[in-house]
Amino acid sequence: MIDGTLAPGALAEQLLAEVRFDASGLVPAIAQDAVTGEVLMLAWMNRDALRQTVLTGKACYWSRSRGRAWQKGELSGHLQIVRSILLDCDGDTVLLKVDQLGGIACHTGRRHCFFRRADGYGWHVELDPVKTEAEIYGRHE
Amino acid sequence: MIDGTLAPGALAEQLLAEVRFDASGLVPAIAQDAVTGEVLMLAWMNRDALRQTVLTGKACYWSRSRGRAWQKGELSGHLQIVRSILLDCDGDTVLLKVDQLGGIACHTGRRHCFFRRADGYGWHVELDPVKTEAEIYGRHE
Repeated sequence: MIDGTLAPGALAEQLLAEVRFDASGLVPAIAQDAVTGEVLMLAWMNRDALRQTVLTGKACYWSRSRGRAWQKGELSGHLQIVRSILLDCDGDTVLLKVDQLGGIACHTGRRHCFFRRADGYGWHVELDPVKTEAEIYGRHE
Repeated sequence: MIDGTLAPGALAEQLLAEVRFDASGLVPAIAQDAVTGEVLMLAWMNRDALRQTVLTGKACYWSRSRGRAWQKGELSGHLQIVRSILLDCDGDTVLLKVDQLGGIACHTGRRHCFFRRADGYGWHVELDPVKTEAEIYGRHE
């Protein structure tokens, strides 16, 4: 507790109190590169994931497919160091401004997840991976 | 149909085919200012809203509270002119890069919706409205 600010645990509860989680207990969380402004990804947070994010300063999300909290980068090392946490007008969406370690936010090895752009024919992939998934996750035969 | 690209209706169906709508038939859609990179808002789209966005070039969303599609700015005049439509790796989140007419994306009259920032005490409002809601929507006694 520095200069009268709340202790981390109390601050987390203070912040959580104004977030409107949906019927499944989740809110969407957008991660934006704090330097370039690029939108990196959208993931989901439950109360625990947001609490962990506040307490650790590293982005923590809730995996709907795996049914558990995960620290972004826990396998890849591509952690997101949180510079700011913002909440929207309705209290039902979170925006994180982050430093993206490794410069790779997407599990496909790309800088960000929004690499398909609509053109006159359909979805066009406009961004190459920085690394392959095998390079990131060390999957071998 | 210009230079062999798909006709707008066919293009819309081509794009929709790769979007993974959730169990409620919705995907989250992030609107980002095409010039400044600011994240303006998050709203929801069903198939019709995304189709309309593709066909008209103006952002159209699905209001979960009102249970109907709405063209962003239909009451305020603060339309979003769509410069790019992007889809993420999983196909379950849309990112629009837009020109925000009026410079106001938020119904509270602010430039964007993410005007509350976590500080050491809780959520701190860090952005003033450009206009009041009464000025925007013309509500009078």
